Amino acid sequence: MKLQLDPARLFPVDPATREVARGLYNGVAQLPILSPHGHVDPRLLLEDTPFGNPAELFIRYDHYVTRLMHAAGVQLSELGIPDRTGVAATAGPREVWRTFSAHWHLYAGTASGYWLQHAFGEQFGITEQPDADNADALFDRIEATLATDAYRPRALFDQFKIEVLATTDDPMDDLAAHAALAADPSFSGRVLPTFRPDAYLNPATPGFADNVEKLAHWNGTPASSYQGYIEALAGRRRHFVDHGGVSADHGVFQPLAVDLNRSDAATLFEGAMAGTLTDAEQRAFAGHMLLEMARMSVDDGLVMTVHPGVFRNHNTDTFTRFGPDTGHDIPATTTYVDSIRPLLQKYGNDPDFHLVLFAVDETVYSREIAPLAGFYPSVYIGAPWWFLDAPDAVLRFRAAVTETAGFYRSSGFIDDTRAFLSIPARHDMARRLDSAFLARLVREGRVDLASAERISVDLVDTLPRKVFKL
Amino acid sequence: MKLQLDPARLFPVDPATREVARGLYNGVAQLPILSPHGHVDPRLLLEDTPFGNPAELFIRYDHYVTRLMHAAGVQLSELGIPDRTGVAATAGPREVWRTFSAHWHLYAGTASGYWLQHAFGEQFGITEQPDADNADALFDRIEATLATDAYRPRALFDQFKIEVLATTDDPMDDLAAHAALAADPSFSGRVLPTFRPDAYLNPATPGFADNVEKLAHWNGTPASSYQGYIEALAGRRRHFVDHGGVSADHGVFQPLAVDLNRSDAATLFEGAMAGTLTDAEQRAFAGHMLLEMARMSVDDGLVMTVHPGVFRNHNTDTFTRFGPDTGHDIPATTTYVDSIRPLLQKYGNDPDFHLVLFAVDETVYSREIAPLAGFYPSVYIGAPWWFLDAPDAVLRFRAAVTETAGFYRSSGFIDDTRAFLSIPARHDMARRLDSAFLARLVREGRVDLASAERISVDLVDTLPRKVFKL
Amino acid sequence: MKLQLDPARLFPVDPATREVARGLYNGVAQLPILSPHGHVDPRLLLEDTPFGNPAELFIRYDHYVTRLMHAAGVQLSELGIPDRTGVAATAGPREVWRTFSAHWHLYAGTASGYWLQHAFGEQFGITEQPDADNADALFDRIEATLATDAYRPRALFDQFKIEVLATTDDPMDDLAAHAALAADPSFSGRVLPTFRPDAYLNPATPGFADNVEKLAHWNGTPASSYQGYIEALAGRRRHFVDHGGVSADHGVFQPLAVDLNRSDAATLFEGAMAGTLTDAEQRAFAGHMLLEMARMSVDDGLVMTVHPGVFRNHNTDTFTRFGPDTGHDIPATTTYVDSIRPLLQKYGNDPDFHLVLFAVDETVYSREIAPLAGFYPSVYIGAPWWFLDAPDAVLRFRAAVTETAGFYRSSGFIDDTRAFLSIPARHDMARRLDSAFLARLVREGRVDLASAERISVDLVDTLPRKVFKL
Repeated sequence: MKLQLDPARLFPVDPATREVARGLYNGVAQLPILSPHGHVDPRLLLEDTPFGNPAELFIRYDHYVTRLMHAAGVQLSELGIPDRTGVAATAGPREVWRTFSAHWHLYAGTASGYWLQHAFGEQFGITEQPDADNADALFDRIEATLATDAYRPRALFDQFKIEVLATTDDPMDDLAAHAALAADPSFSGRVLPTFRPDAYLNPATPGFADNVEKLAHWNGTPASSYQGYIEALAGRRRHFVDHGGVSADHGVFQPLAVDLNRSDAATLFEGAMAGTLTDAEQRAFAGHMLLEMARMSVDDGLVMTVHPGVFRNHNTDTFTRFGPDTGHDIPATTTYVDSIRPLLQKYGNDPDFHLVLFAVDETVYSREIAPLAGFYPSVYIGAPWWFLDAPDAVLRFRAAVTETAGFYRSSGFIDDTRAFLSIPARHDMARRLDSAFLARLVREGRVDLASAERISVDLVDTLPRKVFKL
Repeated sequence: MKLQLDPARLFPVDPATREVARGLYNGVAQLPILSPHGHVDPRLLLEDTPFGNPAELFIRYDHYVTRLMHAAGVQLSELGIPDRTGVAATAGPREVWRTFSAHWHLYAGTASGYWLQHAFGEQFGITEQPDADNADALFDRIEATLATDAYRPRALFDQFKIEVLATTDDPMDDLAAHAALAADPSFSGRVLPTFRPDAYLNPATPGFADNVEKLAHWNGTPASSYQGYIEALAGRRRHFVDHGGVSADHGVFQPLAVDLNRSDAATLFEGAMAGTLTDAEQRAFAGHMLLEMARMSVDDGLVMTVHPGVFRNHNTDTFTRFGPDTGHDIPATTTYVDSIRPLLQKYGNDPDFHLVLFAVDETVYSREIAPLAGFYPSVYIGAPWWFLDAPDAVLRFRAAVTETAGFYRSSGFIDDTRAFLSIPARHDMARRLDSAFLARLVREGRVDLASAERISVDLVDTLPRKVFKL
Repeated sequence: MKLQLDPARLFPVDPATREVARGLYNGVAQLPILSPHGHVDPRLLLEDTPFGNPAELFIRYDHYVTRLMHAAGVQLSELGIPDRTGVAATAGPREVWRTFSAHWHLYAGTASGYWLQHAFGEQFGITEQPDADNADALFDRIEATLATDAYRPRALFDQFKIEVLATTDDPMDDLAAHAALAADPSFSGRVLPTFRPDAYLNPATPGFADNVEKLAHWNGTPASSYQGYIEALAGRRRHFVDHGGVSADHGVFQPLAVDLNRSDAATLFEGAMAGTLTDAEQRAFAGHMLLEMARMSVDDGLVMTVHPGVFRNHNTDTFTRFGPDTGHDIPATTTYVDSIRPLLQKYGNDPDFHLVLFAVDETVYSREIAPLAGFYPSVYIGAPWWFLDAPDAVLRFRAAVTETAGFYRSSGFIDDTRAFLSIPARHDMARRLDSAFLARLVREGRVDLASAERISVDLVDTLPRKVFKL
């Protein structure tokens, strides 16, 4: 079966509306990519090593892709993922690619399938859908292409017109790769670190006490000192700011902020280090630390992003054998209005504090996030994330938030991806969908065309620069 | 940039469907306005004083409008809102209008923006989008127009073809303005009071005991008498009925009904007056009183409307300085099925009792409200309200409820507005959207055109008359 | 008013998209009907007795239909439903049909109205909308048609091209009707029983202890024996398997699975039999038994279907007088991610175990069911059910789940109906809507036409055969 990328893909089906969308899209299609939140490893660009093969590139590390084959009965070990209990992966790259090709029909209509088609067509000139028969030929073609200089990471970085790429990093990361890239005269892109402190803030995280020990050791204070812990966190944030970091990211189950006094906080901290807290006390301490992070953001200017509501590692057997990020992180109900209130009471009206609220429970978009962002100068509406970063979901998102909060309270697109090659596909998809949404509003007489053209550029350029302080 | 009102605005983009929508709309566009729930001050019509200036009219009192500028970093005091802590408003009307004009792009795609455009274009003949450059000229133009007799409230009331306008009133209001309007031979409109007793029913409301004292004083019974309290409420309801009132409105956080016996209720009442109730007891008493209000509605015929699920005054600092209704009322999750059940057990099957259920959590439309209204003869589906009174949200609403409950369990449109000048824009929007929704069903072969024409008129005329007993 | 069935009904309004939908639909319109979940009585086909009259056929037993007239103020006794407190039904079939005809406009835009139109037009050649004037003529016409051999149940079974029809049965049912049908050489259809054990698993069900007694008696073990209870359930499941059963259905309020050890389970069982459990203990035991049912499904291969989230018999007075299934079953909020986890921990990764998750709270589709089905090989996404089996809701469903889980994790359509004559209308509606959804994706460049054609057939044929092991 043919693989053909329709130049009008994702535009509305009505011909006149499609024409408006095409015009809006043409105005933004070639703008540089700003990627203020993602998971690419900075060493990819520092070392500029060629990508290995299509299985490594598209399958092995992309748990959006592996999960659907797992659901179809394929073992993760057959997809090249090593079993941590000691069993080696049972398939080499070519076998993995063959398995994927034979299951390609599973991806029809999915966001992953859309991005893969884009990459196959746009970046590798492939004109057939993968299947069992053409698997080897496509493998060879992609592998050969990857071996060329034009497909090394830095060359692609330029080809993709990436201006800013934010990574996500452990607070104790020395950020040497970021520093080396910044110092490299042959590389002109901006690669920024993002402070991601969850494992240092939530006593329920395995390894919490060890992490605090590392912080304390770096800070030269005793691990038992709450004061030292707070100082160390502030210090590590400064380290990130010094290396160009613009934001701190918080992955929490429920977005809870708790306002404790210092004495109560210190007491809970002691319990957290001793492992004696109840579940409720653990949540209270983590909620207190979310508030502390907001306070530090007010001080050091790091944009605070909150990614809540994911039940991670839902299946213990899979987690034990294959580790995290293996496809069984499942969204749960989320609510912000009451739980985040103590934070907004303190800092919500500070326009220099930027708080970007994301969701995987889409009911919260119209009910809570848009109304909050429509009042608090600090609050911005995070772009659709994870499972919701998909064509219909993105249009539902825009419809859910725009009528309440307009376009100018949204954060601009974030790709949130580990998959370097999917970055242009994802940004292109976002631009097409915003064009489609705006085109409908133009044709319904709700936004005039000139305003839509301005908004279209602002969504891609002005807003992410402003919201993420780029 | 031009401001042009498309005659086909809000109709579907598909040409054939648009034609069907246009036909349906033309059949209802000129029908009189029935506004059975809103917040216009009756003295506006009694005194018929000219509106002052565009800032007073469109901005100062409309917290849908001020909140988006606040989110953009504008202080509420810069929008003419006085600071209750003693700081005067820092801006006069012209400055407020200039600020608004410079921020006009924030409203693109919002419901407020849509209504403002309608008013600017239809009522003031404005043909440019407001901006920093034309702000003074537009201010002058609107101000001059407002000074003419044709733009005084009563003239507009006639021009808008308002047949019925319900206000919202405190139970102790003497309703003198309503009486004077009804007695005025020079005014032929119906302006009806609505009984809004929240502050007299919920012990958690600041001032509850004082309010009960007022009731008791009026009734000539001791404030400590539960019997007197109940009698006084019934008496005040009769006062509203005697002044043409047709409904009682209940703004509750969660729509809880609790069935207590008289003795337990009296005990809680004592605690409520003494301020000794726990939170749970306060909720129980308020829930009991919601059930009592239903009982009284069965007796006196007042339609019971419930507007639940809003976390009011989310930001304490703003509330302290600028008071309520300043843009930080945020929706929360709502559920009816269990919480309202005691009320429906008692009165749900009484077809003369009318209970209109609203929501700002749109998940409740298809899940609960439509199924309840599809069985209980008392239950009607409230029109989309607050943040959900917006084009896409209204179409989602119709799609969510119609397949379960049809068209004849919905309440008809309510505008719920303080902004007198937005009334025609809001009703016109609702008529356009219902036409758009019906046109799609016609074109999808689900409803024949003749039925759609009948439904279209019934939604605007028959249903609100029936549901609100007009 | 005319009743005309548009051949293009439910297809998208955009002409080019409509053509794609028409082509996809034409490829599946004539495929046989697989109905793996429903509520038709097998004796209907065994006895092949002619249907009586239009009121019996379309109204009296269809609580989707009666509830909307009840909401309009009609008493259920006026619709031929006997009052269990001793009052006879007050209306004969012709009066019931007249009442219905006079209320026909209430069904415009509803799913029931759509199915009824289909049946009136396709099966009875009716060309007018029912109304008060034509009620008697339509009654006579339908009644006369029902008296012909071509409209007896078996003839319709063939005419509808039903290949498989699953019924829903009590665990203690002897399944004699199924056996007789299977043994009847003159009947070639497959009519399969479905094991529905709720009343034997949940101690909160009235009659639970009696039901357990029946199980124990059949098994020849004491009713007090937990071991005997478990054995008996497994034995009755085998009885169903032996009679061609392919699935076990579980109607639960919340889909809770609880992992108890045998000793704790046995203790709770004793309490359940004695009627001494607290609500929480009842829930725990029912949750334990859901897990036991999953374990047995792993053993005996019965597909496990879960239909959660319905508050049944919401109005006690109506339930007392008219019994269950009288229109006041109301959806409630549902969540799976945490509550069902113990079951998925144990059996989720077994590809031979099939678990089909349904919902009447549509928020759970994109948030939980699609992500779960996108990872666990056992989990399939149940088709839209009950109130959600309606045109717009079905399209929302496809949009909500497909981007995350693709098409191949969905179960295929189930009609879930008691109304034999509505079966072709319901399957036809599902085929039209899936064609409409796929056509949009084709025109948006997201799925190529050849893939859409394959998916279209798979949804109707391959998937239900696989998921329900037909």
